Amino acid sequence: MLAGDEQPLARLITMVEREGPEAPHIMRLLQPHLGRAYTIGVTGPPGGGKSTLVDRLTSLIRKEGSTVGIIAVDPTSPFTGGAVLGDRIRMQQHFLDGGVFIRSMATRGSPGGLPPTARGVIKLLDAFGKDYILVETVGVGQTELDIMEMADTVLVVLTPEAGDTIQTMKAGLLEIADIFVVNKADREGASYLLAELTAMLQLHPSRPGWQPPVLAAQAVNNIGIEEVLQAVKDRRRALEETGHLWERRKEQRRKEFLQAIERRLAARLKETMEKDGEFLSYLERVEKGKMDPYSACQEVLANGRLLQRWLEED
Amino acid sequence: MLAGDEQPLARLITMVEREGPEAPHIMRLLQPHLGRAYTIGVTGPPGGGKSTLVDRLTSLIRKEGSTVGIIAVDPTSPFTGGAVLGDRIRMQQHFLDGGVFIRSMATRGSPGGLPPTARGVIKLLDAFGKDYILVETVGVGQTELDIMEMADTVLVVLTPEAGDTIQTMKAGLLEIADIFVVNKADREGASYLLAELTAMLQLHPSRPGWQPPVLAAQAVNNIGIEEVLQAVKDRRRALEETGHLWERRKEQRRKEFLQAIERRLAARLKETMEKDGEFLSYLERVEKGKMDPYSACQEVLANGRLLQRWLEED
Repeated sequence: MLAGDEQPLARLITMVEREGPEAPHIMRLLQPHLGRAYTIGVTGPPGGGKSTLVDRLTSLIRKEGSTVGIIAVDPTSPFTGGAVLGDRIRMQQHFLDGGVFIRSMATRGSPGGLPPTARGVIKLLDAFGKDYILVETVGVGQTELDIMEMADTVLVVLTPEAGDTIQTMKAGLLEIADIFVVNKADREGASYLLAELTAMLQLHPSRPGWQPPVLAAQAVNNIGIEEVLQAVKDRRRALEETGHLWERRKEQRRKEFLQAIERRLAARLKETMEKDGEFLSYLERVEKGKMDPYSACQEVLANGRLLQRWLEED
Repeated sequence: MLAGDEQPLARLITMVEREGPEAPHIMRLLQPHLGRAYTIGVTGPPGGGKSTLVDRLTSLIRKEGSTVGIIAVDPTSPFTGGAVLGDRIRMQQHFLDGGVFIRSMATRGSPGGLPPTARGVIKLLDAFGKDYILVETVGVGQTELDIMEMADTVLVVLTPEAGDTIQTMKAGLLEIADIFVVNKADREGASYLLAELTAMLQLHPSRPGWQPPVLAAQAVNNIGIEEVLQAVKDRRRALEETGHLWERRKEQRRKEFLQAIERRLAARLKETMEKDGEFLSYLERVEKGKMDPYSACQEVLANGRLLQRWLEED
C-alpha cells in the first residue's frame, strides 16, 4: 500500500471499516506516515450540488498535478442497513485516473453522523500519499460537527433555495464553516443569500485570524471553482502560519483517543450484558419497570465484581 | 408536584435538566407514578409548521378535556451554548391554561439529537398527570431516531416544498413515522407528495399490524387537525391491543439504562483524564502524534490499575 498500490489500499480500507481485530495494528503502522495530506470537508443540506463541486475541484487539483482521495459518505437507514443514496456512479470521469481514489462509505452505526471509521480511512489515504482528501457528507445534524473534527478546512455548500431551510441552522453553520460556497448562484435569491451570509459573518466573527469568505459558484458550469480552491489554499496558509493547524490536529487526536475508549467500553458493555447473570437481573428489573434506569445504573457502577467481569472481557 | 402544583414541577425539571446528584433520586421516586401519559413525538424538517400543528392539537385535546405537556426542543449551537430558535413566545394562547404545561429545552450537549435529559422531563410530566405529552423537535439527523426511542407515536410533518430535501431522508422517515402529516396542503405539490408517500408505504410496509396513514393538513387554518388526533388514537389502540406498546416501552427502558451507564462512564473518563498522571501521559503522546489513538486505547483498557482508579472515581 505504501508503495502506491491501490489494491492493498482498498483491502485495508475494508478492514478498517469492519473494525476487525487487526484495525489497531494497521493504525499503529500508519502513524509514522501521517500528516502530509490536507483534508477538506464538504458539507451542506441535501441537493446543494456537493458531489458536483467535489468533482470539479478534483479536476482542478489534478490539473495542478496534485493527487486526490475522495470519501463520499452516504446516509444509511439505521434500520434496514442499506445506503439511501447509493450513488455509485458519481464522478465517473475520475475512475480511470490513477491520481484519484474514490470510496463511498455508509453512515452505518452512526445515524445522522459520520462513521467513526471515516477517520481511519482518511489516515489510510494520507499514508497512501494523497495530497488532498475530500470528504463529502450530507450535512444534517451531527455530521457537520463530526466533519469539523476530522477535516482541516470545512466548506459549507448552500443554494439560494435552501434559504428558508437553513434559517434554523445558521448559527451552527457559522461555527463550522471555514469557507461558504453559494452554489447554483445563477438562481433567484443567490445575491440575497450571499449578502446575508456576509453580513452575518461580519456581525459574528467566528474564527480568530480568519474571515470566512462567501463565494458564489456554479459547479455544474465549472464557474467559481478556482476561487474556491484558492480560498482553501489561503485558509491552509493561515492555519499553518499561526500554528492553528497543529492545534486543530492535536485536538482531533485527543477526541479520537477518548472516543475510541468510550466506544470500546460500550461494545464490551453490550457483550457482558448478554451473558452476565447479575447484569441481566438488573436489566430485567429495568425493562419491567420495577427499577428505574438511573438507580440501576448507580448500583451497577458501584458493583465492583460486576465491573471487574465487564472490564476483563477483552 | 404530585399534588398538581406547577411550581415544584418546574423546579424538578430544572434539576433533572442539570443532571445534578439528586436526579437519580428524583427518578426513583417517580417510578411508581409512570406509564399513564401517552407521548407523541412531532418531527420533520425545519419550516414545516410543527409548532403550529402542536398548538392546534393542544387546543383540540384540551377541548376534549384532557391535559397536555409540551416539550419544545430547540437546536443549540454546540459552540456558543445558545439556543438558535429561542422561540419563547410560541403557543402564547396556552400560557394561561392550567391544563397545559410548556417547556423549552435546548439540545445542549447532544448536537443533532435530543438531550438525554428529555426522557427525564417526559417522566416528570407523566408523573405530574398529563394525559398527552407532545415532544416537538426539529427533525435533522439523530433527533428522528432519538424521538422514536422516547415517544409512543411519532408524527412526521412534511410540506410540499420539502419534496427535494427529503429525497435523501425518505428511507429513514419511513422507519420512524407512525403517521405522516403533509402540512400546508393547500400549496402546490401537496397532492403529489401525498400520493408519493402513500405509494412508498405500500411498497415498503414498515410497521407490523399498522399501515401509517398519510394525512393532509393546514395547521394554520385549523384544517385536518381532528383527523390527525384520531390517527393518534387509532395508533394507540392498535399498540395496546397487540401488546406492542408494552414492548416499545420495555425497549425504551433498556436503552435508557444502557445509555445512562455509558454516559456516566464517559463523564468519569473525562474527570479521571484531567488528573491521572498515567492517563495524561498517554494523552500527551497521542496529542503529539507519537502514539496512535487505538494503540493507546488498547493499552489504557489493558491497564488494570488505571481502570481501577477511573471506576472508583465516584
